Amino acid sequence: MDPQLLTNYLGEVRELVINEIRGMVPRGPFRAILYDPMLEYPLRAAKGLRPALCVAACRAFGGRLEEVIRSAAVIELYHNAFLIHDDVEDGSALRRNEPTLHQQYGIPTAINVGDAMLAVAMRSLLENTRLLGVGKAFRIYEVIARMAMETAEGQALELDWIRRNQWDLRDADYWHLVYKKTCWYTFMAPLFVAAIVAGVSAEMLRRLRRFAIYLGVSFQIIDDVLNLEAQQTAYGKEIGGDLVEGKRTLILLHMMRTATAAERSAASRFLDRTAPPCPEESIPFLLDLIRRTGSLAYARTFATGLANKARTTLAELSSFMTPSVHLAFLESMVEYVVSRDR
Amino acid sequence: MDPQLLTNYLGEVRELVINEIRGMVPRGPFRAILYDPMLEYPLRAAKGLRPALCVAACRAFGGRLEEVIRSAAVIELYHNAFLIHDDVEDGSALRRNEPTLHQQYGIPTAINVGDAMLAVAMRSLLENTRLLGVGKAFRIYEVIARMAMETAEGQALELDWIRRNQWDLRDADYWHLVYKKTCWYTFMAPLFVAAIVAGVSAEMLRRLRRFAIYLGVSFQIIDDVLNLEAQQTAYGKEIGGDLVEGKRTLILLHMMRTATAAERSAASRFLDRTAPPCPEESIPFLLDLIRRTGSLAYARTFATGLANKARTTLAELSSFMTPSVHLAFLESMVEYVVSRDR
Repeated sequence: MDPQLLTNYLGEVRELVINEIRGMVPRGPFRAILYDPMLEYPLRAAKGLRPALCVAACRAFGGRLEEVIRSAAVIELYHNAFLIHDDVEDGSALRRNEPTLHQQYGIPTAINVGDAMLAVAMRSLLENTRLLGVGKAFRIYEVIARMAMETAEGQALELDWIRRNQWDLRDADYWHLVYKKTCWYTFMAPLFVAAIVAGVSAEMLRRLRRFAIYLGVSFQIIDDVLNLEAQQTAYGKEIGGDLVEGKRTLILLHMMRTATAAERSAASRFLDRTAPPCPEESIPFLLDLIRRTGSLAYARTFATGLANKARTTLAELSSFMTPSVHLAFLESMVEYVVSRDR
Repeated sequence: MDPQLLTNYLGEVRELVINEIRGMVPRGPFRAILYDPMLEYPLRAAKGLRPALCVAACRAFGGRLEEVIRSAAVIELYHNAFLIHDDVEDGSALRRNEPTLHQQYGIPTAINVGDAMLAVAMRSLLENTRLLGVGKAFRIYEVIARMAMETAEGQALELDWIRRNQWDLRDADYWHLVYKKTCWYTFMAPLFVAAIVAGVSAEMLRRLRRFAIYLGVSFQIIDDVLNLEAQQTAYGKEIGGDLVEGKRTLILLHMMRTATAAERSAASRFLDRTAPPCPEESIPFLLDLIRRTGSLAYARTFATGLANKARTTLAELSSFMTPSVHLAFLESMVEYVVSRDR
């Protein structure tokens, strides 16, 4: 794998997507109070994985850039709208190394900007009709609507666990959550949209779905690991922020079932987000318990196993793709997911 | 006008719409944490003006009930999603005589339920393709997307005025806000969707637009009046809640420009939502100033003038409609808007 290829590919798609998003977002009298804040997250330094996956898969299947770029940009816009609402819901302070939108503009404006982004995205998808014809445009709509519902269901599940301070969860519960919250909107939706634009078979869609799930769960596990390990500047969010927010990660589930009863009870009290947090005391305790139970290593091994399955599935898929920089990018994504440090 | 006709018509459409909404909202494992909260606002006692307007206009133009009911229900679902987010943004305590959704479930769940409702609404609109064909289904999508953007722009404008404690506003500024926040989503979108389903001419759409604007602004002014005058139980929101939220109403704009400089300065301080509110002191002062400046009477006269224009416009439109209970309902809506006490 050539790491430069991945970086270059992401950079090139990102430039196209930002250009597209600028074209989608209105200007005029509401610019300062609505549309500039709408561009705030999309313009912050970000990898742009979703649109790059969408463009690469479409082109690897023989689709054309100009047919897919609008949909890729819509997915990125949706993503950023969800991030805004998510940051409000989680009470996050930082996003991409800068204050979250609600920190900058207040919660009311942040919610409203997110809603307006969904409307802009919805309107922009209408233009696919002219570009792709009605059939494909509608199937893309269906994927986006499904993605929005899966994401909301995942979010509801996570909020419910946090509200009830529920920790007797299995790895399968984590998988279920990540399938909805990460796989659908970071991997399945971009890849399905790509496949629809390129016009691939139902059989191919089933394989893509498997690829998206393996890669997505693996990606999320590593994301959870990095949240605990990474350097703040490189990662762009608060270190240990997942602990503060009470996120159920594979790491914590492993820690909980491996710890002693006394440790488990202390950890559960520290992680209870219905009680006032005391990060000064709890975070060192939790980080130490995570280390002693080998939970980070457990999670990394789990993620590596899934990445291997993703690699095998992509190898099967690739026999239906043209060898190209686009396929090479997809292959390098699999390596990146487990080897990244941010 | 027969007041019973209005009540009966609203009641009948509401029953159909609730039935339709129940069919649109999924069941299954996410019911308790996502889909029951989603039904909370739609099932609370409400008039259901939007779907009734949509159904009545469609049928008055010769469209069929089964062609329009899904779209009418989608509009109602959108409305309820906006209400949830709006209540969070405004910090409202009551909605339809019960606690707001974020009071019941917390802000994170309320935001997420609203987002999920938008996704359900979006998916439900896709089914219009089978029912109405692609052309009409897409034009309806365009109307709904436009409605969502206009509403967000209106909300952004209002939040901006509140943030800057801006009171040097003209009646035309109020009109501009109400055009976006009320006319588009309570009147124009339902009537446009009705017209698209019924397949009326562009000329007819222009007249409907005028009707919707006259009726919508008149409706909002009376809503503002009732917020200050009405009995709590009948009205369903906190009395004077608009004062607490800092809403710019025609009443307050008139009060501000009619009051003495000293009164204006005191009122502006009391209405400043960037400072901590002191409702015990400020509300009696503001209510008295509103009374002394004759601002409620000014607003009522303004609303009555617009309702007269709405009546004239509907009379012109009605020559293209079949005389029916549906037309009679539209006529009675005009009377209702200015004569209602809740």
